[in-house]
Amino acid sequence: MKNSTYLIILLALGLLFTTYKWVSAPETAAVNVENTTINDIMTRTSVRSYSGEAVKKVTVDTLLRAAMAAPTAGNKQPWRFVVVNNRQTLRTIGEEFGSMKMAAEAPVAVIMCGEPAATFPGEGVGYWIQDVSAATENLLLAAHAMGLGAVWCGIYPIQERVDKFRSLLSLPEDIIPMACVCVGYPDGESTPKDKWNPEYIHYNKWHSPTE
Amino acid sequence: MKNSTYLIILLALGLLFTTYKWVSAPETAAVNVENTTINDIMTRTSVRSYSGEAVKKVTVDTLLRAAMAAPTAGNKQPWRFVVVNNRQTLRTIGEEFGSMKMAAEAPVAVIMCGEPAATFPGEGVGYWIQDVSAATENLLLAAHAMGLGAVWCGIYPIQERVDKFRSLLSLPEDIIPMACVCVGYPDGESTPKDKWNPEYIHYNKWHSPTE
Repeated sequence: MKNSTYLIILLALGLLFTTYKWVSAPETAAVNVENTTINDIMTRTSVRSYSGEAVKKVTVDTLLRAAMAAPTAGNKQPWRFVVVNNRQTLRTIGEEFGSMKMAAEAPVAVIMCGEPAATFPGEGVGYWIQDVSAATENLLLAAHAMGLGAVWCGIYPIQERVDKFRSLLSLPEDIIPMACVCVGYPDGESTPKDKWNPEYIHYNKWHSPTE
Repeated sequence: MKNSTYLIILLALGLLFTTYKWVSAPETAAVNVENTTINDIMTRTSVRSYSGEAVKKVTVDTLLRAAMAAPTAGNKQPWRFVVVNNRQTLRTIGEEFGSMKMAAEAPVAVIMCGEPAATFPGEGVGYWIQDVSAATENLLLAAHAMGLGAVWCGIYPIQERVDKFRSLLSLPEDIIPMACVCVGYPDGESTPKDKWNPEYIHYNKWHSPTE
């Protein structure tokens, strides 16, 4: 055969191969669509060190939209948010609380608050904590999905922390700061913890390990 | 030029084009990766009506893996889970609690429990509620991402509900049932609520609406 024939066969095979890869890509993407969210849930981890890159307001808005997409008991939405991007306030948070020292370097922190009076009266008032926690988890996942890193720092029910945040952010008495979520672009890689533990799972009734 | 030369040029161009599409695919996928999770967060909604389709054990395992990927205060993991797929138990839940009547028809329910003694002592003991809530939100999102529908039904802190679930599932005194999540394949479409409310957002300090 002539050299040009070899070249034609080679190119045709190359074209076939890459077309196959390309055409078959959507199927893979479809599987990825289902897996992407599960994958993001499984790979999210606490990020405590940030690059200097700023977090845009439109990105913070997306985080807050994700937070407010969480379910709330009776759809009462007792969540309130204070976005902190004032450098001095972030520095103060980082200096006041050992567990939040990363706030001093974070471009932004979202203080996840609750207004208990906005949910059910009586026993059900406690649902505000579950509602604000679901919103917080959504915010953490949304951050991770957008390539940001975040960490959930507990405030409530530690009264000293509640009081200090209330003073720092001028929160009214009926607003409870529950968590401080520091957000930024990760400075390096973080390895997610493997927390899977089948001993925590029971079927239909509680069985002690010896049963 | 000879015909073979045209053919070579044509094939080479085709190869270039498909290679370009293939090589550039990951970028598109990367954007989808970012949007899929946010989209799942935004479109998740409470699903209270299920088709008869069973939920496989491997799927329940994925839900529990997602739940246990949530963060916990001090990584104490005070969550415990009772998976209920016994038809009579599900029927009893549905009959006992008006807000959980869908349990009677759900193929499976996961009772999200906490063991307060497993987290911090003192004031920090209350973190178990936030930890179990974050796990619950992960479970709801994972269900939605896999085409399932789920609904978070509150148990704790309503004492009557806590007592009845403790009795029904033989829970020890130190295990608190917090929420009953009913899970199944959706029977029809559900429209997610738009809960975005910029009035809930403050910047750096709390400002009343009149400020």
